[in-house]
Amino acid sequence: MIILGIDPGYAIVGYGVIESNGSKVKAIDYGVIKTPADLSIPKRLKFIEESMAKLISLHKPDAICIEEIFFHNNQKTAINVAQARGAIVISCIQRCSNLFEYTPLQIKQAMTGYGRANKQQIQQMVKVMLELKEVPKPDDAADALAVALTHSQTNRLAKIFGM
Amino acid sequence: MIILGIDPGYAIVGYGVIESNGSKVKAIDYGVIKTPADLSIPKRLKFIEESMAKLISLHKPDAICIEEIFFHNNQKTAINVAQARGAIVISCIQRCSNLFEYTPLQIKQAMTGYGRANKQQIQQMVKVMLELKEVPKPDDAADALAVALTHSQTNRLAKIFGM
Repeated sequence: MIILGIDPGYAIVGYGVIESNGSKVKAIDYGVIKTPADLSIPKRLKFIEESMAKLISLHKPDAICIEEIFFHNNQKTAINVAQARGAIVISCIQRCSNLFEYTPLQIKQAMTGYGRANKQQIQQMVKVMLELKEVPKPDDAADALAVALTHSQTNRLAKIFGM
Repeated sequence: MIILGIDPGYAIVGYGVIESNGSKVKAIDYGVIKTPADLSIPKRLKFIEESMAKLISLHKPDAICIEEIFFHNNQKTAINVAQARGAIVISCIQRCSNLFEYTPLQIKQAMTGYGRANKQQIQQMVKVMLELKEVPKPDDAADALAVALTHSQTNRLAKIFGM
């Protein structure tokens, strides 16, 4: 099963594609979409939507998982990230019917078994689980791989325990 | 010129379509898109995107104008409205290259000549300018007509003053 994980953002969107076969997982692709800062908001949203469409067409994921977003101290940032997430959701749901959302807490729990793990611990787990030599860079790409791995873990446990 | 104005929202999206010929404006259509509350967030965003696509295909607007969103006291509401706005922008920019954004202040100024007008004054102006018998209901539809009228006003003044 090919899983595309997404760390939504406005200036930078992280993505991570993994292949999951039972307990075996491997990284297929990961990176970030950077939106040109000189474009208007609608054009940056369009850029994100089109970049997502290309990624989906390239990897044909069986499932797409997007991190949920919560409070940002900066209201303007929060609104732009949320608008970008809306554009991402549309791009994905038009191309893949298996769309899942995970909260930061669910991701922490799936990756480290408890909800208070920090960012570095999650990223180390991404490296270990995917048998990578280094922690994937930038952070947004590592975070996106964590979202994809969360789905793989959740799916596997659901099968084992008949959930 | 056909102008589609949009008051973005998550549970309710207001829309208003006007025809503008120089200083003459008339209402063509207005109303709201209500998203089913029992659907997931991605499905509600998809519902909004598809409803917008139908509206655009029906009215073939020459310009689409979307109100900008600002601070909401309720963070969850703000995030969902912003996600919906992202979905709306994608739907519009894929179908119409003339996309405009207006702030609440710009709308107030265009509709009443000053920035401190209240909602009721704006709605009265919508009624007067479009020669309607009543203030359009619900509020979201009236607000969307105000966005469309703002574009018509701005465009007309720009032509007169060679801006």
